[in-house]
Amino acid sequence: MSDEIRAHYLIETPLPVEQAAAAIAGEQSTGTFMKLASESDAVTARAGARVARIERIAEVPTPSLPGARTGSRARYTQARIEIVWPYANVGPDLSTLMATVCGNLSELSELSGIRLLDVELPRAFVDAFPGPRFGVEGTRARFGLAAVPAIGTIVKPSIGLLPEETAQVVAEFAEGGIDFIKDDELSANPLFAPLEARIAAVMGAIDRHADRTGKRPMFAFNISGDLDQMRRGAEAIVKAGGDCAMLSLNWVGTPAVLALRREFPLFIHGHRNGWGLFSRAPMLGLDYRVYQLVHRLAGVDHIHVNGLRNKFSESDASVLDSARACLAPLFPGDRRVMPVFSSAQTVLQVHDTYAALGSADLIYACGGGIVGHPDGIAAGTRSLRAAWEAAAAGIPLAQAAREDAALRRAVETFTQHIR
Amino acid sequence: MSDEIRAHYLIETPLPVEQAAAAIAGEQSTGTFMKLASESDAVTARAGARVARIERIAEVPTPSLPGARTGSRARYTQARIEIVWPYANVGPDLSTLMATVCGNLSELSELSGIRLLDVELPRAFVDAFPGPRFGVEGTRARFGLAAVPAIGTIVKPSIGLLPEETAQVVAEFAEGGIDFIKDDELSANPLFAPLEARIAAVMGAIDRHADRTGKRPMFAFNISGDLDQMRRGAEAIVKAGGDCAMLSLNWVGTPAVLALRREFPLFIHGHRNGWGLFSRAPMLGLDYRVYQLVHRLAGVDHIHVNGLRNKFSESDASVLDSARACLAPLFPGDRRVMPVFSSAQTVLQVHDTYAALGSADLIYACGGGIVGHPDGIAAGTRSLRAAWEAAAAGIPLAQAAREDAALRRAVETFTQHIR
Repeated sequence: MSDEIRAHYLIETPLPVEQAAAAIAGEQSTGTFMKLASESDAVTARAGARVARIERIAEVPTPSLPGARTGSRARYTQARIEIVWPYANVGPDLSTLMATVCGNLSELSELSGIRLLDVELPRAFVDAFPGPRFGVEGTRARFGLAAVPAIGTIVKPSIGLLPEETAQVVAEFAEGGIDFIKDDELSANPLFAPLEARIAAVMGAIDRHADRTGKRPMFAFNISGDLDQMRRGAEAIVKAGGDCAMLSLNWVGTPAVLALRREFPLFIHGHRNGWGLFSRAPMLGLDYRVYQLVHRLAGVDHIHVNGLRNKFSESDASVLDSARACLAPLFPGDRRVMPVFSSAQTVLQVHDTYAALGSADLIYACGGGIVGHPDGIAAGTRSLRAAWEAAAAGIPLAQAAREDAALRRAVETFTQHIR
Repeated sequence: MSDEIRAHYLIETPLPVEQAAAAIAGEQSTGTFMKLASESDAVTARAGARVARIERIAEVPTPSLPGARTGSRARYTQARIEIVWPYANVGPDLSTLMATVCGNLSELSELSGIRLLDVELPRAFVDAFPGPRFGVEGTRARFGLAAVPAIGTIVKPSIGLLPEETAQVVAEFAEGGIDFIKDDELSANPLFAPLEARIAAVMGAIDRHADRTGKRPMFAFNISGDLDQMRRGAEAIVKAGGDCAMLSLNWVGTPAVLALRREFPLFIHGHRNGWGLFSRAPMLGLDYRVYQLVHRLAGVDHIHVNGLRNKFSESDASVLDSARACLAPLFPGDRRVMPVFSSAQTVLQVHDTYAALGSADLIYACGGGIVGHPDGIAAGTRSLRAAWEAAAAGIPLAQAAREDAALRRAVETFTQHIR
């Protein structure tokens, strides 16, 4: 048990499910399309994968994905299956783990659908990775937070500001009491606002604010790029007294995340842009519990999970499942990753978010939900804190709004926004 | 023109197409869900994306992907659109390019489908990347090939052999005259066959073969892993006199590919395992012309394209489109990437492959198509070369098979295999 890797899939196949599951186990371990002399029993015993469980769910008349070889069958069976590999095949490596559980599988013509639902790793695998340097506890400590989440926002417009314009926006956000501010994923090292110039300008604004107020908001600089650029960016952040780097996880790769985690004493803010590629087709891709696990092992401290009633296509159930996965301890040492809620978030989703999670261990990032407050950024930030304090204290939103002017105005404003 | 990035998409939307296209351009540049003071005209002029073209294709009654906000419309329009960004937004960086053309797009609720078909890059972007160190010309020169492709194969079983067992398989393949041998994507650094031990054992077998025959097959060692492991692997290959490293492109990330390209004088063999995640759903993901472009810029010399009549779900048209994209010159300096054909390839697909491509600039990788030859590996290899020589000379397969015993036996054997 402790020396096995287990993967859970939702599959759809025109074949008998046992045959399709065996094809997966074979393709992803010792099988090949002809029986070779070298595929000896010893090799199979050492490295063969096996099907541990099959649970039929439904039969459907049309395939979810094209390209399956149907033979004479006109129906497709959907099933949950579990495949088990010897840990020794993979060793403690994320790239080979993904090649094994998620490699040449979605192209198989034995399948008209396959989605990776979950992965269980042996302790030896997990132990080999550093995990988040700061994670949930470190992020809360950084902000000195008790019952409420860090209130976050993003520099807008996403792209196009010059370094000094960015710094001015950051100064306004800091003045408004925001805890956490981030770059957009589109803005890394634009020619008109190079990363190092942005770092200098933004940290200047943060220093001036801290000198005056004693409070330093965290700024997540998007250092995504080639390795040299990411290292230069991380160094520049450290040198300027910053403490957070943002990475576009899908494009920089886990080896880069791991290297930065090991080399720099920075919070790593993990951005999942492109996640829809892996998730939007229901019978393809992977569930977020796998995604957050891989990146958590690589050392990400914060990771995006979208938000309730977001502007994207993701359901609330999916968002909550993602956040719960991030907040599930991963031993040794807990190593939870802080989920970042965002996308059209306002005071209106706070109570539902808290009720569903039973936790304020998150970053609650708002754009319009802060700057759209009719009384300005400070009132917007205050209204969000008031909503979270109310939720944590069991006070309904309407009641809390009667007692707090900023929250009342926020509720009125954003309720009107909803069609 | 020369300072713009252009992306071509196939989209599907319940909204008027103009509105959906504008949402994409806005989301991926200066737009946000509320009009902010900071989104000034100067910013939009500097960094705004625009919709350059819309071409309606079809209306369909059901959405390809779930999660679109339909409003009152019950029909979905499919269209090709073209979005243009200022090059200055991105600069010469692959991660930010992908975040821009392929980031938070497939999650948009304005869409029930989006697939990235192609990307056009300005010269300044292309010039900033090294491209393949060897590419097509370097690979051909390495093998001393004229009219025929390099004949390749893969160590089977994919995973489970001990280092000395692997070396024995390699010795047999070398003896059989095979040009190129590769690791499986599942086999990187297994506990029972650590990478460095495999490199030592395999290069020993290759050295002994070369000492005797003067011919050195190329072996692609799968060094995929974290950065330290990849660098250690690359160093060990160089030290042992090897010349090729294989990478699981989707899991190591382009920053790692670029770093290895710059640091080591090795052929980089790009493996696309997991590509089905990006390609199998027709209205999601990306076309291979984008995928090969990104990895070609990062410095990959060989890249997998599947093969005609393969065992996977991909159509022949798609395979050929991929190979043609790899073989299209990318200036400055050509920088073509060698397509690797594989998956159930035998002598039977050779003529069709050559006819469709008009080129033998490829690696033709066979597993059972070589070892399944009834007269052994040498006969299998010879039969494939004979088939390619015939194709290049315009001699039909049946005629060539009459004149070459190994080819005749191969044709007979593999024709029987086809149901």
